[in-house]
Amino acid sequence: MSSFAPSTLNPRIKNVQYAVRGELAIKSEKYRDMLKNSDHGLPFDKVITANIGNPQQKGLDQPPLTFGRQVASLLEYPPLMESGKNIFPSDAIARAKELYTEIGSIGAYTHSQGVPFIRKNVAKFIEQRDGYPSDPNHIFLTAGASAGVNLLINFLISDDKSGILIPIPQYPLYTATLAQYGGIPLPYYLEETERGWGTSTEEVERAVKKAIDEGVKPKALAIINPGNPVGSVLTYEEQASLVKLCEKYDIVLLADEVYQSNIHTDDAKFTSFKKVVCDLQSNVALISFHSISKGVTGECGRRGGYFECVNVPDETVALLYKMVSVGLCPAVGGQIGVDCMVRPPVEGEESYGLWKKETDTIHKALAERTLFMAQRLNSLPGMSCAPSPGALYLFPRLHLPEKALAAAKEAGRTPDNFYAIALLDQTGICVVSGDGFGQKDGQAHFRLTCLCAGVEAYVDKLEKFHREFMKKYE
Amino acid sequence: MSSFAPSTLNPRIKNVQYAVRGELAIKSEKYRDMLKNSDHGLPFDKVITANIGNPQQKGLDQPPLTFGRQVASLLEYPPLMESGKNIFPSDAIARAKELYTEIGSIGAYTHSQGVPFIRKNVAKFIEQRDGYPSDPNHIFLTAGASAGVNLLINFLISDDKSGILIPIPQYPLYTATLAQYGGIPLPYYLEETERGWGTSTEEVERAVKKAIDEGVKPKALAIINPGNPVGSVLTYEEQASLVKLCEKYDIVLLADEVYQSNIHTDDAKFTSFKKVVCDLQSNVALISFHSISKGVTGECGRRGGYFECVNVPDETVALLYKMVSVGLCPAVGGQIGVDCMVRPPVEGEESYGLWKKETDTIHKALAERTLFMAQRLNSLPGMSCAPSPGALYLFPRLHLPEKALAAAKEAGRTPDNFYAIALLDQTGICVVSGDGFGQKDGQAHFRLTCLCAGVEAYVDKLEKFHREFMKKYE
Repeated sequence: MSSFAPSTLNPRIKNVQYAVRGELAIKSEKYRDMLKNSDHGLPFDKVITANIGNPQQKGLDQPPLTFGRQVASLLEYPPLMESGKNIFPSDAIARAKELYTEIGSIGAYTHSQGVPFIRKNVAKFIEQRDGYPSDPNHIFLTAGASAGVNLLINFLISDDKSGILIPIPQYPLYTATLAQYGGIPLPYYLEETERGWGTSTEEVERAVKKAIDEGVKPKALAIINPGNPVGSVLTYEEQASLVKLCEKYDIVLLADEVYQSNIHTDDAKFTSFKKVVCDLQSNVALISFHSISKGVTGECGRRGGYFECVNVPDETVALLYKMVSVGLCPAVGGQIGVDCMVRPPVEGEESYGLWKKETDTIHKALAERTLFMAQRLNSLPGMSCAPSPGALYLFPRLHLPEKALAAAKEAGRTPDNFYAIALLDQTGICVVSGDGFGQKDGQAHFRLTCLCAGVEAYVDKLEKFHREFMKKYE
Repeated sequence: MSSFAPSTLNPRIKNVQYAVRGELAIKSEKYRDMLKNSDHGLPFDKVITANIGNPQQKGLDQPPLTFGRQVASLLEYPPLMESGKNIFPSDAIARAKELYTEIGSIGAYTHSQGVPFIRKNVAKFIEQRDGYPSDPNHIFLTAGASAGVNLLINFLISDDKSGILIPIPQYPLYTATLAQYGGIPLPYYLEETERGWGTSTEEVERAVKKAIDEGVKPKALAIINPGNPVGSVLTYEEQASLVKLCEKYDIVLLADEVYQSNIHTDDAKFTSFKKVVCDLQSNVALISFHSISKGVTGECGRRGGYFECVNVPDETVALLYKMVSVGLCPAVGGQIGVDCMVRPPVEGEESYGLWKKETDTIHKALAERTLFMAQRLNSLPGMSCAPSPGALYLFPRLHLPEKALAAAKEAGRTPDNFYAIALLDQTGICVVSGDGFGQKDGQAHFRLTCLCAGVEAYVDKLEKFHREFMKKYE
C-alpha cells in the first residue's frame, strides 16, 4: 500500500486544520454510537452537540421553514402541483410552478453560476436591503458560503508571498483553505472586552504593515460580520474605516456575512459592506458571502449560498465563471433554498402568517438562549463571557488555575483543549476549544453554539462540570 | 478596480480549460436568449444542446426516475408521509421513513463522508456487483464525481514534478484540475479503429517511461471506463493488464466509472476495477468514482456521487476525511439520490414495475440513438465514427479538406473548433470540438451527446450542414 501513504501526498494537506469537525467532533460521534448500547458505561446518556452551527441537527430544536420545504417538495415531484392541491398552500404551488418554468427539472445541471432567474431574485434582495443596484451577472450561487470562500482564496493566492488578513479568533475555514493553497494567514486580533469583541482598523493596519515589512503581499482582508466565533456586530463607522483601509492598501475585501439575519439585540444593527462601499463611492473590490445554512433558514444540508462581486473587473468574473464551470453547478436544491431565503412569503400571501410565526419563534429563542447562557456562564468562577449580539455562538474565556495548566501540559494539550476534552468525556457536551479558532498567546476559550434545546438542563450540566473542574485543579 | 485584475491572480487559474462549458456553450446560451425575440434573425429556431451529458435538460427527453423523486419529495416535506398516503406508493413512503429515521432533517449537515447508513448501502451495492467486501468507512459521498476527482488530484500533486496519466482524448475535468493544482498531465493516447477506441497497456507504459525519463513522477493513472468522450468499454484482460502496470510502477489507479450502467451492446460488459484488483489479489491503491448524474438516474442537478478507496492506508483515508470536513458535507439531496441509485425498487415491491419500465425505456432509447447516429454519421463524406458501446457520446472524426484547414487557420482556430462554431452558428447544434478533449496532432473530432430527443430531425440538420461545409471547402 506504499503508493498512497501520507508521505507521498501533497504536503499542504497535512497543514490543513479544521477543529469544528476535528478530534472533539469525531470523539463525540463515537460516544453517540456507544450510547446505542444499554451497557455503554459512559457517565452521560446523550451527546449534546454544541460544536457546530447546524440548527436542524437531531436533538436541536430549529425546524425548517415550512414554505421553503413545500416549494422544494413540489419541485422534487412536480405531479404534486396538481395532486397535492389539498395539501399545499396556493402560494407554495405558484412559486414551485414559477421555478419549474424557469429551471425545468431540478435533475439537470443549471448555469454554472446558478439559475439566472434565481440570481435576478438575489440581486433584487440585495437592492432592497442596501438601496443600490446589484448585477445578477456578478452573483454566483454556491454550495454554501464555504465553497465560495475556497474559490476566492484559490484565486487570490498567486504565490508563496500572498497573504490574507484574518481575524483571530476566526472561523477555521480561512486558515484551512489558506493551508490548502499555500497562502499566508495574516492575523489581526479582535479585542475582547466586557462589552463584546471589537475590530479595530489600527490593529488591522498593524497587521498589514507587518506583512509588508516581511515581504508578504496582503491580498485580501477577511471579515466575519456578525462574527464567528465571537458574535460581534460591527458598527457602521468601523465598517467605513475598514473599507478605507482596503482602499489605501489596495486590498480585496472578503465579507463573510452569513449571519446577517442573526441579530439578537436592539442595539446591534447589521449593515452590509456592499452598502458601505456604495455609500463611500469606494472602488474597493468586495466579495460578499451569504448562505442558507444560518439565519432563520438553517438549511445546512442543502448546501446553498451565494457571493456577490462588487467592483470586480469583468475579466476576473469571467475567470470565476470558468473555474466554477469545471464543477458544473451548485446543487439545485441549494439554489431553490436561496430563492426562498431571498423571496420569503410577504404580507397578504397565504403562507405569510406561518412564515412570520416560525421566523419570530427562531429569532426569539436564539436571542433568549444567547442572553441566558452568557449570563449564566459569566457568573461562574474562572469564566468570563463577552456578550454576543449576533451569529449563533458564545466564545467564553477560561481563566484556569495553574494546576490545570500543568495538567494540560502533561497531557500534551492546550489548556482549553484539555478542558473541552474533559467536558466531553464527563458530560457528553461537545464544544470546540479556542485553539481551533486562534487566540492571543496564553489565553483559553471555547466556542459553544446557542442552538441546543433544553438549554437550562444543558447549562446546569456545564456549570456543574466547570465548578468541579475548577475545584479539582484549584 | 486594480486590486482584483486578472494579472494579480493565481497564475494557474489562467491555465485551466474546460471546453464542455467553454466558448461554444456560452455562445449557445446567448443564442438561446436571442431566440426569445421573434425577430432574432438567426438561421434556426432552437438550440440543440449536444455538448454536455445532462439527460434531464430542457428539450431532452430523459425524465427522472419516479421512485427516487418521490422519496426525495417526502423527505423535503415529511408531513407528506401521512398526508400523501393516497398519492405516494407505500414503498416510497417506507423508504422515506427509513431514511428520515437515519438522517433526521435533510436540512442538517451530515457526517462529512456522507450519512453512515447510506454509505453502508453503497458498500452492499458494491459487494453485490463485485462479490468482494466493501468498507463503508472507506467510502466518501461527494457532490458528483467531479468533486471527488478534484479532491484526489489535490492530494496526489505533491510538487511540480508530480504527474497523472490521462487518456487522450479525455474528459477535460482531468486537465482542468491538474492545471488548478500545478500537476503535469501525462498523456497516453487511445487508439481509434473502425471497431472502436482501445486502451493499450504498452501505450500507457510508454507514457510512464517518458515521464520518468523527464524526471516526472507518475503518481496516478486515470482511466475512464466506459470512456468519455470515446464510449469505449475495456475488456477484462485490458483491465487486468493495466492493474499490473500500476503495480509494477507503484501508481495509484483512479477509475472514473460513472458510466458503468450505460452499456449499449451485448458484446460490451462493464467490470469494475475493484473486482479486477480483488480477483488479482493486487495491492494497487484504487479510487473508484461513481455518480448519480449519468446512468439511468441522470440526476446531474442533485450533485451526488461517491468514491471508494481500496488498498488505501487508513492514515490517508483520515486525511481525506479531514479535507472534506472543511467543506462540511455533500448536499443531502445528492446523498439521497445515491441511496436510491444503489437501492432501486426490487421485484415484488410496489414501485418495481414502473421503475423497470422507466429504466428499460432509457436504456433502449440510448442504445438505439447511439447506433442510429453512428451509422448515419459514418455514411457521410469526410467523417468516420467509431462505435460507442458505452457512455452517452459519439466522438466522430473529421477528415476536412485543405481549404477548410486553411480557413480555420485564417480564423485563428483549430479545424474542429472552426467546424463546431460554424455548426452552432448555422444550425443551433452545440457540440464540443475535439481540441477540448485532446487528440493526436493533426486530427479533428467533435463530441456530441446521444441524449437529444427527435434524433432524426437533428441528424438531418447535422448532415445537411456537414455536406454543405465539405462542399464549400472542397
